[in-house]
Formats: sequence, C-alpha cells, structure tokens
Amino acid sequence: MKQTQLFTKTKKESPADEVSLNAELLIRAGFISKEMAGVYSYLPLGLRVIKKIEDIIRDEMNKIGGVEMRTSVLQNKEVWEKSNRWDDEVVDNWFKTKLKNGGEVGLSFTNEEAYADILKQYISSYKDLPVYPYDFKNIFRNETRSKSGILRGREFYWKALYSFSKDEAEHNVFYEKAKDAYKNIYKRAGIGHLTYLTFASGGTFSKFSHEFQTITGAGEDLIYVDENRGIAINKEVYNDEVLESLGLKKEDLVENKAVEVGNIFSLGTKFSTPFDLKYKDENGEEKLVIMGSYGIGLGRLMGTVVEVLSDDKGIIWPESIAPFKVHLLMLGGDQSVKTEALKIYEELKMKGVEVLFDDRVDTSAGEKFADSDLIGIPYRVVVSKRSLADGGFEVKKRIETNGKIVPFDKLMEEF
Amino acid sequence: MKQTQLFTKTKKESPADEVSLNAELLIRAGFISKEMAGVYSYLPLGLRVIKKIEDIIRDEMNKIGGVEMRTSVLQNKEVWEKSNRWDDEVVDNWFKTKLKNGGEVGLSFTNEEAYADILKQYISSYKDLPVYPYDFKNIFRNETRSKSGILRGREFYWKALYSFSKDEAEHNVFYEKAKDAYKNIYKRAGIGHLTYLTFASGGTFSKFSHEFQTITGAGEDLIYVDENRGIAINKEVYNDEVLESLGLKKEDLVENKAVEVGNIFSLGTKFSTPFDLKYKDENGEEKLVIMGSYGIGLGRLMGTVVEVLSDDKGIIWPESIAPFKVHLLMLGGDQSVKTEALKIYEELKMKGVEVLFDDRVDTSAGEKFADSDLIGIPYRVVVSKRSLADGGFEVKKRIETNGKIVPFDKLMEEF
Repeated sequence: MKQTQLFTKTKKESPADEVSLNAELLIRAGFISKEMAGVYSYLPLGLRVIKKIEDIIRDEMNKIGGVEMRTSVLQNKEVWEKSNRWDDEVVDNWFKTKLKNGGEVGLSFTNEEAYADILKQYISSYKDLPVYPYDFKNIFRNETRSKSGILRGREFYWKALYSFSKDEAEHNVFYEKAKDAYKNIYKRAGIGHLTYLTFASGGTFSKFSHEFQTITGAGEDLIYVDENRGIAINKEVYNDEVLESLGLKKEDLVENKAVEVGNIFSLGTKFSTPFDLKYKDENGEEKLVIMGSYGIGLGRLMGTVVEVLSDDKGIIWPESIAPFKVHLLMLGGDQSVKTEALKIYEELKMKGVEVLFDDRVDTSAGEKFADSDLIGIPYRVVVSKRSLADGGFEVKKRIETNGKIVPFDKLMEEF
Repeated sequence: MKQTQLFTKTKKESPADEVSLNAELLIRAGFISKEMAGVYSYLPLGLRVIKKIEDIIRDEMNKIGGVEMRTSVLQNKEVWEKSNRWDDEVVDNWFKTKLKNGGEVGLSFTNEEAYADILKQYISSYKDLPVYPYDFKNIFRNETRSKSGILRGREFYWKALYSFSKDEAEHNVFYEKAKDAYKNIYKRAGIGHLTYLTFASGGTFSKFSHEFQTITGAGEDLIYVDENRGIAINKEVYNDEVLESLGLKKEDLVENKAVEVGNIFSLGTKFSTPFDLKYKDENGEEKLVIMGSYGIGLGRLMGTVVEVLSDDKGIIWPESIAPFKVHLLMLGGDQSVKTEALKIYEELKMKGVEVLFDDRVDTSAGEKFADSDLIGIPYRVVVSKRSLADGGFEVKKRIETNGKIVPFDKLMEEF
C-alpha cells in the first residue's frame, strides 16, 4: 500500500487525557483513534494488526476442533435471568438499553449464556458431543476506570470459545489442548517469552482457573513467577496452602506486575444446570453437559505487545502481527530514486511481500525515518541517491541500529 | 468439514413468530439462530456465507481505492450533536445506553459522523484527498417492526464506505465507480439479474440518491422498472416531473415489490460543514470537503438471496457465496462406502474444494437428501453401495432434478 493512499498521519502528541503507553504510541502512529475513554476505533494500520492476531487465534482454535460462529451483541433479558446474571446487583458492568416497543436488552459482556442457550437447541445425545464453538465479537463492559488504553476497553474485540463435553475426563483432555493452543498464540504473537501460565481463583467448579499473564509494568495484576518451572501464581490465590498444593516454594518466586492476556475456565455444570443442558448417554441416561470457557481479548493482546516491545522511538512489531513486513522509504525527489522505488515496490507486491511504500514527495528524510520508527514495521528499505550510488538499497531491521547496503538483485532474498 | 463436527442440525419448524421466508429457511437449515425479533446469531454455516459476501464486497471496495478500518460501536454524544443527529426527536431509532460514571452514549446506527470526526484529524491539504475509508461493523437500529427476518434487523452487519473528495467533479467520478462496484457485488452474489439501479429521493445535496433494489415479493419498497434500460425508479420519486427528467415513460414501467440491498448517496457538504472538515487547495484557499456514502447490509443481502433463490425443498446458494461448494453424502454403513467417502473427502479438501461431508451413520438416505436440499450447497455428491456398483459417485447440482454417475477418476473434473 502507498502511504499517500493511507489517510492517517503520525502525530507529535496523543490526547492530553491519555496516560497509557500503548494508546499513546498507537494513537501517535495512526493505529487507533480515541472516541472516548475506553473506546477506540481501529484505523487501517491498526485493523491490519488486529486481523493478523485474529488469523493466528483462528488457526489455533481450528486446530483443536473449534467451529467459528458469531453471536449477537444484543442480549435477551430472559436468557440471562436463567443464570441469575441479568441483575445489575449481580453483574455490575452491563450496558443495557431499551427496545422502542418495550423491554430491556443488554450488550454482551461475556458469552456463556448466549452459547448455552443456542447449544441447548442442538444437543440431546452423546453423539452430539463434544463440540467447541467460538466467536470473535465486540464485547461491552461498563467500566468506571478506563485509563489503560486498549488494555481495558469499555468496548473491545475478543475471541471466546466454549467447550461442551460429556464428562470431566473429556473436558480435561480438551482443557489441556486449549492451554497449549494459548501458549502457541502468545509465542506466535511475539510475547511468549514474557507470558506465563498463571494459577488463579477457580470459582465454583474447579480449584483453579488459568490465566496467561504477560509481565509488564503496565499490568494491573500481581503475579509470582517460578522461572524454572515457567509458571506463575496470581496474588489472589497466593497463600501457603495453595503454594504447597502446587509444589511451589516462596523463595523460588519473583513478584511481577503483569497483564492478563487470556484466561481459561472449567465451568463444570454452572451453566448447563440453569439452562437444563443435558444429553442422553449410551445407556439412555440423562446427564448434564460439562462446559469450559476460553477467552482472549485481541485489543488487549495488541496493546500488550506495544507495552513490552517498544523503545523510545516507537513500536517494534513482531513480524507475525506487523501491519506490513517491509516499510519502503523513497528519499528525495530524484527521478532515478522514484523509478527504482516504484520498481521495487511493484516487485515486492508481486512476490507477496506486504509492503508500505512511503511515496510522499515533500517529506524530509528525517521525518520519514522518525515515522518509520514510530510505526514499527520490521524491515525498513531505503531508496536514495546515496543508496543507489552505493549499488542498491539500504536494509535495516527495526530492532537493529545499523543498516546494510543490499545490491538490487539480492533484495528479495532478505524477505 | 465433517457434519458430525458441526453442532447444528436441521429443524422441521422455525419459531412460531417467524413469518419471513428467509428466516424460516435459514433457521430450519441451521444458518442462524433467533435471539429476539430482529436479532439473530450466525451459526457456523451462516457465518461462512457472511464471510464470502464480505470477501466479495471487500474486493470490490479495494478495487476502487477503498481502505478498510473499523469504527467503534459506542458513539460519543458530542460528536453527533455537531450534526444535530443526537436528539431522539431528530433520529428516532437510536439505541442509547448510559456510562456507569455518567453520561449517555449511543450505539452506531450509521457512520457519517464517526468518519467525519476521525477524518477531520487527518485532512488539511488537497494532498490528503481523495480518500475512501470503509468498514464492516455491527449497526443497531431500534426498529419497532421486525418481521422480515434478516432483511431488517435491529442489529445487523454492514459495510459502509465514505468518500472524501476535493470537489463535485472528483466526487462524481468516484460515485460512478461505486455504482459499477455495487453492480459487480450483486452480480457476483448471484442476484444481478434481479437487481436494479433505482433512482430515489436525494436529500439536500443532490436530486437523487441511488438504491439497488432486488425484485422480490418480500420487499417493502415499490419500484417502477424499465426493463429495456435496466433501471428503476422508487415510488417516493415517481411523478411526472421526475419521469420526464429521467426520460422515462409510464408505459414502459412495470411496478414491482423490491428490497433495497444497497444505497449510495451524494452528501455534498452536509457533514463537512458541521465538522468544519476543510482542506487548503493548491492556492492556499480553504474549501469544504465533498462527501459521499455507500452502504450495504450483508445480512440483508444474504436474506435476499434466500428469498429469491429457493424452492419448496430449501435454499439454492449461488456458488460464490455458498457455505461449501460440495455436499458429500455417505449413504449406509457399508465399509466400502465409508472407505470411498472418506477417500474422496480427503482428496477434495486437498485440492482446495470446500466440502461438507455428511458422515452421519444413523441417518437415513431420505433424511440426508432432505437436509442437503434444505441447506442448499451447489453440488451434491453421493457415495452409496449403488453408486459404487454403477462405477463411481452420483453427482447432482442443487438446481437440477437428476444426477449422473461420475467415475472415480473423473470426479475432480466436475469442480
């Protein structure tokens, strides 16, 4: 894509009320636009990142048997009353609105009830199980505090998968697969080395739930990390009894601030009971379905990557989720430079390399370099009179300080 | 995909309150699930159709210079007050909700204000124009009447593109391109032959807007079609003066019920004025940006296809937007049948042919045929003892009455 086709520009400043690093960088670089506290629109560059994250998550969910669907945002009061989660006294972050011809509806703040209600139509026999439906959708939470940029939105884009299993044993097998799928997601998104499977409070049906926590000063959680075992424990369950049950020793644990980038829950029959979600087993006996939930916020993951992988010049995208692989900079208005830049732009596109081409003519080299560092595309390719005189293009990775001259006919080998 | 992995099943009945053909067929076939009047969730089969429609629209928008982004659903009151469209007296189908820490927000019912507000940050010079951003998003309209299935939802998934041009001339060039892109969309989605560019009321800044109307008894609009010229006129502008200005003669026009499957508007400076959306031209003179809007509802398009392309047995999907290209039916529990069916299933997948494999073992041939007709996948391939004895597979198009036996080694040539 040519930069002149992209309508966004980098900015020197982010909004005065924006205190989080992720939102500041993403706004200045033109990835997101702030609508109000906790609500952002995704500009073209930002949407490209979200879609790459979405593709990674979809791939990992499909690999473990997930089936994609899409539930509605508007939610039926009667459905949520079944599980006693309609009342604002019980769930305090609903957004609710009124139908013009009477009656209140809610905006999805999570999806257990919607899924249990839909699956109830289709599950009746052991032959119908297990199933693993999931969706990507916008979720709405009426947060009073929204100072963390896209780490905690009032509106955010997430993936949630729900597992429907015949029994605990079948559930546990899938739950372990989901753990691995989640680990793959963070690895592929470039933050695997900072992300820990973390034991957290389990609720009614299991001792623990599992969070995936990424270490960053921007995090709102406190976790205790055992580096050797590669696991962590959330402060909420940090006590002697739990430590012992997990075989963890206090002296091996390091306290860290972290952000929860995903969580998985064993729900047991918590939702299948109120929704009367049952199946007939091989012997014709009626049994309750065992459920699990597996959530991940795409904006939060994107924001976490920015928090942990940036420097004082801007963002440093991992190649897997970068909006483009190559940022091609044309410096100066010289005709030979223009010709070479356009030629290499077309060639990169033809070879399937995603390239953002800074074809602006009235912009100084200094500005272009600064913009490129701020936007954070992994590879920078510079075409200038100097590079041409040196026999090619200057190629520099975003993470490196110095570039190198690559001859015309060798450039494609770099990507 | 194997049908046993898909959790949905066909149904004999749709909800009692469902009166529209599109919703009845889509619910019975397992494409959508009704949450409440005018609100549906997309089940796996339905989401596959929506995504194919989305891909066609995206492709056509990108071809005319569109840049994809994604605006938020939650909308800021102050932004909409600028154009005087916040007040319920002015716009009567808002869904509004309250922030927990004070203040009202709206749910997007359209996108002009959101775009004008965002683009205002980036447009200042003639060099920044034209630009054509668009998004796919959920739109919410507080309709009192919701009896048309996915033709008119309270929540629906749509694409809207907004054009930002320097002057009327530049705007008009793009507007004509958009017309052609829209025609391509309907042609590619299989309803081009029933869809007419229709002159409708234009609003403040142009004599006409243009709708795309598909002829169907399920439509809520009345249009007058000139078959020879391939255009139509909406009842709302059907008068002698307009007929004359368009060179249309009453005697050439046929009245039809039709559903509006898309619309394009010239907005002039209607929104750039309140948002003070200006640019400096080559001479340093400040001018207002000229806007246009180009909308299309994906659910409505999907529902229209169902309304016009179905028979008494079920849906007949055009190949371009079908959930799968091939429905592979394994009949009977014979081992040779199972082996051959699985072999051909794997081969089709390997060749990149999208196939739904009815691998259910306890389901009768009659049920499988009925399900297949209801779901409406373009090609049906049957593997049975009889087909194997006849030397291959029975291949039948959904639109045909009789199938034919295709030898094992010739099957791939069919697709």
